[in-house]
Amino acid sequence: MKTISENRCFGGTQGVYSHSSEATGTEMTFGLFLPEEAQHGPVPLLWYLSGLTCTHENAMVKSGAQAWAAQQGLAVVFPDTSPRGEGVADDAAYDLGQGAGFYVNATETPWAPHFKMWDYITSDLPQLLFSEFAVDEDRQAITGHSMGGHGALTIAMALPDRFRSASAFSPITNPSVSEWGRKQLTAYLGEDEDTWGRHDATIQMRERGFDGPLLIDQGASDQFLDKLIPEALASAMMARRQTGHFRMQKGYDHSYFFVASFMEDHVNFHAEALYA
Amino acid sequence: MKTISENRCFGGTQGVYSHSSEATGTEMTFGLFLPEEAQHGPVPLLWYLSGLTCTHENAMVKSGAQAWAAQQGLAVVFPDTSPRGEGVADDAAYDLGQGAGFYVNATETPWAPHFKMWDYITSDLPQLLFSEFAVDEDRQAITGHSMGGHGALTIAMALPDRFRSASAFSPITNPSVSEWGRKQLTAYLGEDEDTWGRHDATIQMRERGFDGPLLIDQGASDQFLDKLIPEALASAMMARRQTGHFRMQKGYDHSYFFVASFMEDHVNFHAEALYA
Repeated sequence: MKTISENRCFGGTQGVYSHSSEATGTEMTFGLFLPEEAQHGPVPLLWYLSGLTCTHENAMVKSGAQAWAAQQGLAVVFPDTSPRGEGVADDAAYDLGQGAGFYVNATETPWAPHFKMWDYITSDLPQLLFSEFAVDEDRQAITGHSMGGHGALTIAMALPDRFRSASAFSPITNPSVSEWGRKQLTAYLGEDEDTWGRHDATIQMRERGFDGPLLIDQGASDQFLDKLIPEALASAMMARRQTGHFRMQKGYDHSYFFVASFMEDHVNFHAEALYA
Repeated sequence: MKTISENRCFGGTQGVYSHSSEATGTEMTFGLFLPEEAQHGPVPLLWYLSGLTCTHENAMVKSGAQAWAAQQGLAVVFPDTSPRGEGVADDAAYDLGQGAGFYVNATETPWAPHFKMWDYITSDLPQLLFSEFAVDEDRQAITGHSMGGHGALTIAMALPDRFRSASAFSPITNPSVSEWGRKQLTAYLGEDEDTWGRHDATIQMRERGFDGPLLIDQGASDQFLDKLIPEALASAMMARRQTGHFRMQKGYDHSYFFVASFMEDHVNFHAEALYA
């Protein structure tokens, strides 16, 4: 592991690190905020998965998460959204390839060799974090924005007992049927739609749900509502009687100004579950 | 005036606008956060002046100011740091020319035609803001970071009664003697150092001081301490018995992680003065 930078931040440390990932076969970069409390022992860990076009950096500098995480004594990890670098496949479109990993293990050409973001987020990066930093494997929560909201929800439901709480900001909720989804799931996983189900939060909610509290925020003036389909997930949540809140926020769009506006609520929501 | 974007943010609006400036003779861009309260009448206005290499955007997306400004019902304006565009002089160095206006009215070639940032910040932009937005001319405060801290302090002291409070994050305090300063004041104002004095916060503090409370935060691990010279301003403040706090913050560097960490304190400090 290589330390790229460490900045003092809200009494703790905002670090950026890189490491060689077995899952992706590439060097991967991530941000990690550790609150002051981490100097005295392991602290709970909140995962923040980012959206299309983002790197580890966007939420780290724009979401304001550190202010609230410091208050609550939580660590926050900001992974990258795809493998990158020479020899890694890419596409000219902003929503496929580098910056658009969709948190799946690709099986199709040319993506299969490196696009293993599911394994990276669920296995490789956790192993590194729990061996190298003062973060507590038994107290994890997960959130994300847009494509990262999709990742947070599908991963949380697939791994019962790993995350005590899950949340999302304007998540892609039903990629099997939406424009942000069908294209990428076809490219990464192939045309057999049976392989897509575990990567569709609405389908997962219908079939199994999540074993903790959920919080979803969605801007009512989001310019991508037709690609996010909040009604699909909300309907599935309520049909299942899933414990959780689905909030439609008047006037907000898809930007980080929206994420930042409700970050305090999400951090406090997770803190409540993590310290219960 | 042209609206470039408006995003809902912490119950208010984060806007970006451009307008034709008489002072600079160019199109200028600025960010303006208006809290929800601005829908019902003029609200107090906090100026945030940015540092070297920044545009209107950096603090707007990285400082987290909106969270605290929304709580306090304050507007925050984020001006650009220099004129820009075709026909505007520039320099290959990051610390001269575009992105490095130093908040002076340049008198020297090639800068004189457009580099009138003093007039832009003290006259042009205020006129626009008070005619176009629900902000209260009688309740203004000012802050800034690095070169912007220099601008905030020198402008606040030069215009008694305009700002009820002033603050700065790691300001350039004594540009007449430091590497960030001598080069630019020579380039913009010429070699007669008598013209520099009004643009040196330490000299202004010695000669006149500020007619309200001051708050200065400086990171003790700032990589640019030799260019900022916090001891010069602190000494001048205390020698004058200037009402104010000068805080040296252990472990923090020059980055926006430092600014964000203490933004709540600064916004609350200004709110106290603005609502007194």
